[in-house]
Amino acid sequence: MSNPFFKNQGPFLIKDILNFLDIKKESVKTNLEVKDIKDLYSSNNSEITFLHSKKYKELAQKTKASFCITTESLKNELPTSCIPLVVENVLLSVSKITSMFYPDAITDDFDNSTAYIDETIFKDKVIYGKNVLIGKNVSIGTNCKIGHNTIIEKNVSIGNDCSIGSNTIIRNSLISNNVKVLDNCVVGKHGFGFFPNKIKNLRYPHIGIVIIEENCEIGCGSTIDRGSMSNTVIGKNTYLDNQIHIAHNVKIGENSIIAGQVGIAGSSTIGSNVRIGGQAGISGHIKVGNNVEIGGGSGVIKDIPDNTKVMGYPAKNIREFLRDNKWYTKLLLLTLMLKFLKM
Amino acid sequence: MSNPFFKNQGPFLIKDILNFLDIKKESVKTNLEVKDIKDLYSSNNSEITFLHSKKYKELAQKTKASFCITTESLKNELPTSCIPLVVENVLLSVSKITSMFYPDAITDDFDNSTAYIDETIFKDKVIYGKNVLIGKNVSIGTNCKIGHNTIIEKNVSIGNDCSIGSNTIIRNSLISNNVKVLDNCVVGKHGFGFFPNKIKNLRYPHIGIVIIEENCEIGCGSTIDRGSMSNTVIGKNTYLDNQIHIAHNVKIGENSIIAGQVGIAGSSTIGSNVRIGGQAGISGHIKVGNNVEIGGGSGVIKDIPDNTKVMGYPAKNIREFLRDNKWYTKLLLLTLMLKFLKM
Amino acid sequence: MSNPFFKNQGPFLIKDILNFLDIKKESVKTNLEVKDIKDLYSSNNSEITFLHSKKYKELAQKTKASFCITTESLKNELPTSCIPLVVENVLLSVSKITSMFYPDAITDDFDNSTAYIDETIFKDKVIYGKNVLIGKNVSIGTNCKIGHNTIIEKNVSIGNDCSIGSNTIIRNSLISNNVKVLDNCVVGKHGFGFFPNKIKNLRYPHIGIVIIEENCEIGCGSTIDRGSMSNTVIGKNTYLDNQIHIAHNVKIGENSIIAGQVGIAGSSTIGSNVRIGGQAGISGHIKVGNNVEIGGGSGVIKDIPDNTKVMGYPAKNIREFLRDNKWYTKLLLLTLMLKFLKM
Repeated sequence: MSNPFFKNQGPFLIKDILNFLDIKKESVKTNLEVKDIKDLYSSNNSEITFLHSKKYKELAQKTKASFCITTESLKNELPTSCIPLVVENVLLSVSKITSMFYPDAITDDFDNSTAYIDETIFKDKVIYGKNVLIGKNVSIGTNCKIGHNTIIEKNVSIGNDCSIGSNTIIRNSLISNNVKVLDNCVVGKHGFGFFPNKIKNLRYPHIGIVIIEENCEIGCGSTIDRGSMSNTVIGKNTYLDNQIHIAHNVKIGENSIIAGQVGIAGSSTIGSNVRIGGQAGISGHIKVGNNVEIGGGSGVIKDIPDNTKVMGYPAKNIREFLRDNKWYTKLLLLTLMLKFLKM
Repeated sequence: MSNPFFKNQGPFLIKDILNFLDIKKESVKTNLEVKDIKDLYSSNNSEITFLHSKKYKELAQKTKASFCITTESLKNELPTSCIPLVVENVLLSVSKITSMFYPDAITDDFDNSTAYIDETIFKDKVIYGKNVLIGKNVSIGTNCKIGHNTIIEKNVSIGNDCSIGSNTIIRNSLISNNVKVLDNCVVGKHGFGFFPNKIKNLRYPHIGIVIIEENCEIGCGSTIDRGSMSNTVIGKNTYLDNQIHIAHNVKIGENSIIAGQVGIAGSSTIGSNVRIGGQAGISGHIKVGNNVEIGGGSGVIKDIPDNTKVMGYPAKNIREFLRDNKWYTKLLLLTLMLKFLKM
Repeated sequence: MSNPFFKNQGPFLIKDILNFLDIKKESVKTNLEVKDIKDLYSSNNSEITFLHSKKYKELAQKTKASFCITTESLKNELPTSCIPLVVENVLLSVSKITSMFYPDAITDDFDNSTAYIDETIFKDKVIYGKNVLIGKNVSIGTNCKIGHNTIIEKNVSIGNDCSIGSNTIIRNSLISNNVKVLDNCVVGKHGFGFFPNKIKNLRYPHIGIVIIEENCEIGCGSTIDRGSMSNTVIGKNTYLDNQIHIAHNVKIGENSIIAGQVGIAGSSTIGSNVRIGGQAGISGHIKVGNNVEIGGGSGVIKDIPDNTKVMGYPAKNIREFLRDNKWYTKLLLLTLMLKFLKM
């Protein structure tokens, strides 16, 4: 993944990385430079990657990375060109090394680099309200409006013909043309990702961003978190109602319609032409297909194939749901069955 | 419906309306003036109305409108005084013509007409915080408080003895005496109403307003959308907890109590003396009677009669719900039934 | 409960209290002073307490209070040192008297005492954004950050190394070291507590506060209400995701993890090491034990013992839940049972 926003503080010497992970490995030339940390597929020579599950062993065999953070039991899955760095907790170590390369991606303190918009180059280009703030590395297209008290923090690109409401906060986001983000939203903050620890949880970096494609609308009071290792994406012409929560790494397709107070947990993928009723919840790491309808208030805890209507908790086919909820239908079915069994 | 806030840009010549809808109708005198667009019941001579469903054919026969947007199959339901304008998609055409009359009611960009309150006539009348903004066509009664960073956008009337919190945004609303709207609320924005379209959804105008009657309280982080063709109403002395979402056209009666994170979808009607538990959801176009209790977390997908307690998803009578959720009770009932059948 | 924030306006003469409650009791020396109102356990000589349920009669027998608001049927449960004040509605009367002692604890109008931070002693101590406001009786530790437009209203103590986001409002709260409160939160407002009344509901005072212990994180758009007679507490190193609502008097233990859009109703207690999935709801006055896992979307309506995994609505043991939701398993079990019964 190319990263438009988070500055890579590398390269680092491999000896510093080894030190940081508390690994003693004398066979490694300690003055080798490591340029970046990426996943198995994207990483290249002079970069470091990681392997934490057997699931990825085929990818591991083809990685071009020079180093790989992994475990004792997985270290033999790597090609000879890739030197294993054996640790006890792969993800924790990855988090530490990612933090070395991208220290800005861990904490989300308020952006102290902002200036009032009338002190910036956007003064004559944008129609803006009172008390609007603009951070570093921001671009805004033509014919845009930004409401009162809104804060466009660092690392934001806004296309043409966009309307951003009042009291809204955006950072680390690519927003395409003709997008509306209404009032009181927070877009691009880190997700709810950390390693639990009894004394003090350890946050891992979120180096992903939020991408909102053209013609989208985001309702009042919604929160859209940026991705951790991938991006959070809202596809073209998708509309979100008020008070919706989209967690990190979620990807939503085009032309989807999501009603109020829906929550989509981390790393789930929603197809195109999907309709989700109010207050429905989608668990993490779920895949919802195209042309799916999810009834209001449903709880989706497993994948939903294309062209399906589901409802309930756990969400199931809508006909099945309605049937299961009619006690007398159950009785009827049972009686028929028992009759059939000649009981 | 008389419209206190949205300025009617009419009259328009019928020939311009016909052109806009791409209708060729030579029998119509093209220099006739059309003054407004209203529903079948409210419309008068020289106004245009619409008929899109057989359900309304009785109303249609009595309409006083001079013109009616309708379909080929419904056009004969109109009185001879009303000239049918036949289109393929009635609601879409209504949306277009409403947009001609009320262009301000489509988009909800931030209100650029606001001024700091200390530059307005409210300077010495209201107790206000820092950075308070007031839009055009705003009235505020005696003994009111408005918190920091709050934006009273255009078209708002606030009664006496009201307390508006901080970071709150209000537009297109009539607020009666002794109402409290707490922090971080958004009141009076357009609802989630639009015609889905593969390339770019088409928003229809929301010419309704929000009416909050006396003695109400609206909790922190709540959103109340204004109506599309009718109003959104919160009845006297009704209390809403935090993070509640009230969609467009919803009407809530008096003395009702609605707990945190409840969502009420578009055009539903809630009676008086209703209690709704936290996180419950009410589907759109539902009628909930008076003196109803809805358990927390319930999903209401059908009408609820007066004086009922419901719970569950879909919400049903509370005794029925508890019984259905006890497996052993089911077994017991079954066994009794089987015994009774002498099996 | 010692009260760090709400100023006790007492003492009051008992004759004034009797007058206010419309009680005629000539046996009481009318020039006696009453210093405070507390619960049965905490109250002392020269203080007033209350007894409204038989549940508390053992506590009542040991109270050191000089006066007790109670009912005709409970008045004999008190020791001779405690003079009963008999009323019809105990809680309503308690509310009235608490309001005498703590008039500031009833309404939560915006804090008009705030000043811009650069006009305060925190100017050189805190890293702050634009338009930050600080109320009276606020303390802030070293190395803290406060984002744009954030309002630290009166009665707030913030520890060291804290990061408060933008557009956030805090009052009546004790925040320990290394706490993060993200954007658009409201912390410390009164809860949803009042006596329903047909004309105009009567709010009772909330003299509790919010306590957030060290290393916690509170996600964007969350609301945490302060307690009414006790405090609302978030234990050490507990993390809350976005759009969470924590009602008054709720107590959450240490090291707990609560996902997005969860709601916890008033006076419930959550243990330590608890994990709650997204959109789950906990009813009021519930006790959830330690090491409990609650599935996303669950509705908890009864106590949950330690070391349990629950799911569903109403939430039950996870294995039971999954079984109940498989129709064919039910059939299988039934068939086996019927076979066993030789039917």
